[in-house]
Parts: sequence; structure tokens; C-alpha cells
Amino acid sequence: MGIITLTTDFGTKDEFVGVMKGVIFSISPDAKIVDITHEIPPQDILQGAFFTRASCNYFPKGTVHLVVVDPGVGSDRSILVVKREDACFVAPNNGVLSFLFEDGQPTEIFEAVNSKYFLNRISHTFHGRDIMAPVAAHLSAGIPPDVLGIQVNPSELVRLDFPDPFLNRNGDLSGNIISVDRFGNLVTNISEKLLHETMTQYGASSICVLLGDKKIEGLKENYHSVDRLKPLAIIGSRGFLEVSVNFGNAQTFFNVKPSDSLKVVFYT
Amino acid sequence: MGIITLTTDFGTKDEFVGVMKGVIFSISPDAKIVDITHEIPPQDILQGAFFTRASCNYFPKGTVHLVVVDPGVGSDRSILVVKREDACFVAPNNGVLSFLFEDGQPTEIFEAVNSKYFLNRISHTFHGRDIMAPVAAHLSAGIPPDVLGIQVNPSELVRLDFPDPFLNRNGDLSGNIISVDRFGNLVTNISEKLLHETMTQYGASSICVLLGDKKIEGLKENYHSVDRLKPLAIIGSRGFLEVSVNFGNAQTFFNVKPSDSLKVVFYT
Amino acid sequence: MGIITLTTDFGTKDEFVGVMKGVIFSISPDAKIVDITHEIPPQDILQGAFFTRASCNYFPKGTVHLVVVDPGVGSDRSILVVKREDACFVAPNNGVLSFLFEDGQPTEIFEAVNSKYFLNRISHTFHGRDIMAPVAAHLSAGIPPDVLGIQVNPSELVRLDFPDPFLNRNGDLSGNIISVDRFGNLVTNISEKLLHETMTQYGASSICVLLGDKKIEGLKENYHSVDRLKPLAIIGSRGFLEVSVNFGNAQTFFNVKPSDSLKVVFYT
Repeated sequence: MGIITLTTDFGTKDEFVGVMKGVIFSISPDAKIVDITHEIPPQDILQGAFFTRASCNYFPKGTVHLVVVDPGVGSDRSILVVKREDACFVAPNNGVLSFLFEDGQPTEIFEAVNSKYFLNRISHTFHGRDIMAPVAAHLSAGIPPDVLGIQVNPSELVRLDFPDPFLNRNGDLSGNIISVDRFGNLVTNISEKLLHETMTQYGASSICVLLGDKKIEGLKENYHSVDRLKPLAIIGSRGFLEVSVNFGNAQTFFNVKPSDSLKVVFYT
Repeated sequence: MGIITLTTDFGTKDEFVGVMKGVIFSISPDAKIVDITHEIPPQDILQGAFFTRASCNYFPKGTVHLVVVDPGVGSDRSILVVKREDACFVAPNNGVLSFLFEDGQPTEIFEAVNSKYFLNRISHTFHGRDIMAPVAAHLSAGIPPDVLGIQVNPSELVRLDFPDPFLNRNGDLSGNIISVDRFGNLVTNISEKLLHETMTQYGASSICVLLGDKKIEGLKENYHSVDRLKPLAIIGSRGFLEVSVNFGNAQTFFNVKPSDSLKVVFYT
Repeated sequence: MGIITLTTDFGTKDEFVGVMKGVIFSISPDAKIVDITHEIPPQDILQGAFFTRASCNYFPKGTVHLVVVDPGVGSDRSILVVKREDACFVAPNNGVLSFLFEDGQPTEIFEAVNSKYFLNRISHTFHGRDIMAPVAAHLSAGIPPDVLGIQVNPSELVRLDFPDPFLNRNGDLSGNIISVDRFGNLVTNISEKLLHETMTQYGASSICVLLGDKKIEGLKENYHSVDRLKPLAIIGSRGFLEVSVNFGNAQTFFNVKPSDSLKVVFYT
């Protein structure tokens, strides 16, 4: 039986996550459940989208990823089941699955409407427990998406309003901080691929990152390439440009937050 | 093999919870362990009792619920095994199981005294590891409660001193905040059932909640029934009256805490 | 299939731990994973070493303990596999396994160099995911250490520079605080065994602990041996001398931190 991952903004001080697991095991006793994180800031859809993309490619084929960041609970937003070749995703239709569609993998999108696969009693405030956990458990137990719901057009997907990186008129590459990790490392939306393609296009041999009123010279291979407490730019473990401080905290150092912008300047 | 849930005040920064799991798997290798929460404030028996009641009905039949909030560790308080038709509970006899007995389900109560089923060496400060985890693991592995201990009279149960909701002389319903969740929602001890029965009794068509020096008009169906940052009263996902702030934090808004009282006024 | 425990400084707000679990289950689908803690302060090797020792003896034979506190990631520090009779350990060679060698159990030490058992792509910043999780999963799935790497001499082990307790010229026993738990209890590096041997050697009948400018008389059997909010010395659940405050927080009471020193004075 497969793996079900959980990504939520429920925190771990209440019984919410444990109860969802009870619901899952009641339906799919042999499932394996893996917590991605429950510490997404309340109702922060961007962080939910980020962690879903950052984690989903490290799981075995057939994994079901359940993502509950749901500020619209009780409104008429729908619940989606997204099927890719390697995995399924269950989440509210609010943009939290936006980053899954960047790489052009074929997907099928369903709206989970078959209440036979929900809990009998649906609360107004906890669809993670009453609808999404049961749907994920039934998926993991082998019920196909087209039995759980009806297929919908990709145009019905709510997309997150987060800017893509772009080339400025003067040739700089503009991007944004998308997440800040526990160590204070700043993850950007500029992928290694985009960075290297742009360097090739310009015949550039080096870069400089502009963040706030500070300049970070060069792209380093590891944290120890600079002195203690000095900043550096590096391709992080997720394949995106990150800004770090060796043995320090880049968020404090630069005083920035998710969504803040940065620039990459190219040197030939 | 069955599920064992863990509800403790151990936090997650130390090795306490991991060590209890090692003890459980050493006795019952096929158990599935589900964390309810480990962030109960140190020695807060009320929160332990609340989370136990709030979570236990969502698990498959045969689940063992282990609740370790144990300020009396090392004193002569006993360790209980409570058997219901659907589940067993293991906890110190300090009131942390109080709310299980509200719904009148038949239960049998045992005192875990058979040290054959404890760890060989019992510390003075960590009976969660040395007594309660082994007892829960043996229960889950099929050892019956009357082998683990001796049956005791319900009168020996320590009960939590938490007020029940009551009708005032002027007809208002008085209740108390019992828990505050991660989102700042205020959970009360006034059940949906009690609220509706009282409305029927009075022929009331609407209510108003008085909390601190503020008034909240009406009972809403979902958070979006009021404007952003406005308070509302709602039946929460646990089946109890809750006070929330749409897209906000009711604890901060009202500046209240668990045990604080509130009133419901009925309008005909 | 066996248990794999995880002890890291990754926190739980990011996807790091979940991703390591995805990697483990991709290699060893039947493994059971137990979190010890992920809240080690960033790069705090002493706390990693402490929690590893404090937890490892409570798990079934064959458990693999994966410890990722890795400030040197990307440098040339090696990755170790340590094999004892009861368990294996996977960690960077930076001192985080230091306390395993205190009890003189025979061990074999290997350097994990066989990249066939790593992920295909190795990042510069997350060897927990790319090297250590796969190595632990393969170990758990039955690949022997001498296939995963090459045996190395114990002299190649990096040892933590943490003082052993010692007898002063005036006969006092000097020790250090090694960890502070969630409840504020102060765990020292003075074992019950050392304390009792020293008392026997001196013919001592009682002790006094000196911490900061305060004195704590006697060794108590449990927290309730002193009044509420009074300090006490006790043998804690890990078998080491601890300093606590009954119903209170000893760290706040004494205003101390890990590595601070204390003294035990013996009375005849």
C-alpha cells in the first residue's frame, strides 16, 4: 500500500493532524503517512505551493500528496485531485498546486464531488478531516480519481499570483525570494537551469546578486567558500539559486522576507 | 496489529517521545504509532483531557490511546487502563481521562500493577517510558487489561475540576473556554446539542455570545459569513461552540485564555 | 524490516525531514522511521551527540540511527557508518557520535564512500538527503557496512571536545551541564555510577550540589520530595545527575545553559 504525505498549516499543538491520520487509517489501514510540514504560516498558500513542489519528486511512484492550506474552507472553492504519472495530489483549488504545472508533465484534474467517499458528517470548518483525508485515503487504497470526482478543464485551476523571473531591459535577471528555511537561507525562484542558460546566452563567466542595498559576488560551490558570517550565492539543494551566510542567518543579515525581489547581474 | 496514539506534554525538542516509540516497537513491532500532540503545556491536565476526547473517536476500533501528562510522576498516583468497546486508554490517574466519561459509554477501569509488563528498571521521573509505553504496547499486542492490572471501581477515578455549562437564573447559558487552537479559535465546552436543546426549550430563533466586554451576534455557518477581521460564533469541527475571527486570531482579538468564561443569550 | 531513527537540526518548518523519508522509503519500502528530534539548535554537535546516546539503547536490535547535524556539509569531512552489535549509526565525522564510545562496546567504523549507494545527483548543501539517508536505507535493507564503504581506524574519528567529570584537589566532583530539557531540567555529565562510586570511596552519606552561587542539599528520590518551586538534585531518567525545580523550571531558576559547570560536594 502506498505513501500519503501531509503538508498543512495546522501546526502541531492541536489534534488536527493526528485526527486526519486516524481518518486515513480507518479507510486505508496499510497506508504509510509521511509529514512534510505542518508549520506553514496560517493560510499561506505560497508556502504550501513551494513545499509541495520541493518535496514531491523524492517519493516513490504512486504516492498521494495531501496539501491542506485552506483559507476558503466553508466557501464554494472546490477540492481537487490532480493525477500525474508518478503521483496524485489532493488539495483545495486555491493555487496551492500552482507550481506542479511548471514542468509541463501531463496531468489530469478532477473535482472531488463524490460524497460517498467523504466522512458522513461534513463540518463547516475542517474539510481536511472530513473530505480531503478520506479522498486521499481512498486514492491510496486504489479508488481511481474518476470515481472520486469528475474531470475538469485545466482552465478551472486557480493559479497563484507569483511572478516568474524575467530579464530586465538592461539585461539583469529579476527574481523573488520564495521561501526562507530554518537556517535563514533565502530560496529564490531562479532555477539553476535558467541561470546557466542566461549565462550561456550572454557568454557570461560570472554573476553578482543584488539584494536590498547589498552585493554578493560570484556563485559559490559550498558554504565554506566564504569566511564565517559572510554572505554567498549558491545553487541550493532544490535546484534554485539561494542566498546564505556561512555559519549565519541570511534572513537576519539582509532583513528580507518571502516575495521580496532580487537581481542577478552577469559579467563577461 | 493496532494503532497506538500518543498525547503528551513532552515537547519535541528532547528524545522523550522517540524513546517511548523505541520501547513500544521493542514490545509490539507491528504497531502503528500516531502522534496526536506533544505540545500540551507542561503539566496541563485540562489540555490533555481535551485533546484525548477531541481525537479518540476518529480512530479504528482497537486503537490504544496513551496519554502522558504526569505532574505526579514519582508520587503514589496510579496508572490506569480504561477499556471501552472501541478503544483502550492508558494514562496516570490525575483527571486527564475525565472527559471520556461524559457520554455514558460503558467502561471498565483497571489499575496497571503487573510489573511484569513494565520495563525492568523503573526511573523516578519517566513513567511514560518505563510503565505506560510498555503497558500500551502489550495492550496493543493483545494482552488483556485484566492481566496487566486489577479492575477498580469508577469512584477511584480522579476527576478534573472543570465546570459544566449551566443555565443562569436570567436564562443565559454560561460556559467556559476549554482550549485555544493554533489559529486562535476559542473552543468552548458548550456542545452543539446543548445549544440547540436550549434554543428549542426557549423557542429561541437566534443567539448572542458575550465574551469579555464584547458582543457577538448570531451563529454563523462559516468563517466567510462575516467580513475580514470580524468576530463570529460558529459550531466548530469538534461539535462545540467556538468563537473565531475571520482571517484573524480570536485569542488576540478578545485577549482571553482557557478557563475564561462566556455567556450565550437567547433571542426569541 | 528494521527501524531507522532520525536525529537532526533541520527543524520541522521546512520539507527537509519529509524529503529524507521519501528517499528512505524509495530504497527500503518496509522500513519504520522514528523521529528522535529535529529541533537540535542549528549546527549544535554537542546536542546531537547527547540525544544519540540518550535514545539509542531503547530500540530493538538492528535499528539504524541516522544523525544529521552537519555544519561541514560540502567540505571534505567524511560520512561514517559505525557498527555495534545492537545497532548501526550513520553520521558525518564531526564528533556527533563521540558519546557512543564511552562504554567500551566493540565497534567497527566505516567511511561511506561507495557512491553507488548514494542518490545519483549529489547537492553541495544537503548530504542528509543525498548521501546519509540512502546509506541508512540500504543498511536497513541489508547491505553490509563493508559494501557501503571502507573500514577505517578508530583514530580517524573526530571527537567532541567536551570535558569529562573530574575530582578536584579538594575532593569535590566537577561536572558540566550537557543538555536542558523542555521542562527546564538540567542534565549533567555525572553518571549515577560515578556519583555512587565516589560516595563509596569517600564513605560519604550525603551530597550537596553547587551551581552558580546556589547550594542544593541532598539527592532526592523524586520531584515531590521538595516543596513547589524549590530546587532539587535527582538521578534523572537517563541515569545521570539532574537539577530540577519541583513544578518549576531549573534553567530559569539558575539562569544557566549547556556547558556551564557545577560541583558536587560530599558529606560523611
